Amino acid sequence: MTLNKLSVACCAVQQTARYVAARSYATASTSSFKAKDVEITRTKSPAAKPDVSKLKFGHHFSDHMLEVDWSESKGWEKPRICPMKNFQIHPAAKCLHYAVELFEGMKAFRGVDNRIRLFRPMENMKRMLTSAERSALPTFEGRELVELIKKLISIDVDWVPKASKEQPSSLYVRPTYIATEPTLGVAISTTAKLFVIIGPVGPYYATGLAPVKLLADPQYVRSWPGGSGGFKMGCNYAPTLYTQTKAASHGCQQVLWLFGDDHQLTEVGAMNLFTFWVNEHGGQELQLTMAEYFF
Amino acid sequence: MTLNKLSVACCAVQQTARYVAARSYATASTSSFKAKDVEITRTKSPAAKPDVSKLKFGHHFSDHMLEVDWSESKGWEKPRICPMKNFQIHPAAKCLHYAVELFEGMKAFRGVDNRIRLFRPMENMKRMLTSAERSALPTFEGRELVELIKKLISIDVDWVPKASKEQPSSLYVRPTYIATEPTLGVAISTTAKLFVIIGPVGPYYATGLAPVKLLADPQYVRSWPGGSGGFKMGCNYAPTLYTQTKAASHGCQQVLWLFGDDHQLTEVGAMNLFTFWVNEHGGQELQLTMAEYFF
Repeated sequence: MTLNKLSVACCAVQQTARYVAARSYATASTSSFKAKDVEITRTKSPAAKPDVSKLKFGHHFSDHMLEVDWSESKGWEKPRICPMKNFQIHPAAKCLHYAVELFEGMKAFRGVDNRIRLFRPMENMKRMLTSAERSALPTFEGRELVELIKKLISIDVDWVPKASKEQPSSLYVRPTYIATEPTLGVAISTTAKLFVIIGPVGPYYATGLAPVKLLADPQYVRSWPGGSGGFKMGCNYAPTLYTQTKAASHGCQQVLWLFGDDHQLTEVGAMNLFTFWVNEHGGQELQLTMAEYFF
Repeated sequence: MTLNKLSVACCAVQQTARYVAARSYATASTSSFKAKDVEITRTKSPAAKPDVSKLKFGHHFSDHMLEVDWSESKGWEKPRICPMKNFQIHPAAKCLHYAVELFEGMKAFRGVDNRIRLFRPMENMKRMLTSAERSALPTFEGRELVELIKKLISIDVDWVPKASKEQPSSLYVRPTYIATEPTLGVAISTTAKLFVIIGPVGPYYATGLAPVKLLADPQYVRSWPGGSGGFKMGCNYAPTLYTQTKAASHGCQQVLWLFGDDHQLTEVGAMNLFTFWVNEHGGQELQLTMAEYFF
């Protein structure tokens, strides 16, 4: 068994340069929405907050959300922070048929000093922009989105839970970007929606922070050279659900994804993977395995 | 260069048996909605029909659509044929984040005898059910959905265009199936929506029925052993848009997808591929290449 060599978290940055701009909408794609233009509508009916001791992952959402619409004709519109609501989506929207969608996952933590901290949000922005280019969606200025996320969190600051050793929790931040053009051709979308929803979360696994069991079966392959496994696109997740049911039937919480005849370790389910082992010379080694950018 | 061996259109059927049922909702998944239960609401404001000579692909939709909701708790609800409308979708719906979505593409033709014909719709149903199992979504009875599609077309029968040699056209039928549970964990959805939209279409390519040019570049790989390339899932399409822009920059309409060091032909963009060539013995051969079911 071999291990992929160590990849660093900032490889998204280094790889961006390899991309040729995917779209020709030079005017629209080189511009960006601005945080200072945000229009804020506050809810008149704030929701009750969930019991922190019973938080699951991704089941609760705060009172407000952020959305920014883009179209080829108008470029980026003004960002809006508004009460959490359902979207009106046309049944032919490209995100519902061809999975033209991508996301990020970030967390905001309430410290013992009661201040709120985001963990290196610009790294998420860099990856998000790389995913956008790979999805042929227009880019934007990452720091503008970070400013908007900070504004959104400040409005819903009471939703950031107070964590403790016994009850680990945080505010999960989910920037999402979907193609909305209501036509059925497999083609670049001329309209899109960027949005951010936030909500308090407990540990991702129902087992809490206890170790998880992994299914390693070489017949299921999640990412491959020339594919999109190195990007945070929705398309990389749908095919994993079936495999997850196989894992569950073996009493495993997640899948250890393998690749190639020598069963290279590529990824574990929804996270990166640290491997600690004693090598052939008796030395101890620790390595991080994560999806690499294949092209 | 090698060619995959001939695959037949009904391989979806043969492969279905390889699947172990992906979900444990035995009661819900073994049941199905029934066409006879359909509730019909007719539009009060029918739309103007487009000029048949100017039809594009997938830009026009008829007055009505079909939808059927499923949930783990209630199973399949009654099918509804209703006026074409936007969906209300929660921003955390799994189809918007993890691409849990699949579709079919079928056509209804108006014959010279003025009768409407569907082209082997049960083959589409078989493939759709295979895609549903691979997406860990509940199955249903294909013949019930075909009956509902026929009902929908009969209501919007005036939308089936009259084709001619000069103006090839048909009614495109798009059954779609999306996961709607509004939670952010990467997990099987406990709610889903099956829907069908229909509309008159011209040729898929703007070039009409003239030959298309193809980009063949081995650095882009669409499907691979152990993946989901053999299923009609949305996730197989999103990563192709970027490559399509590369093709366009070379004056090509589509991509000829290759796989492996020997550049096996796997697929062309949105269609199967016939190859006609003179083999090493001077004989003429014609082969159909299409995605195979890898596991």
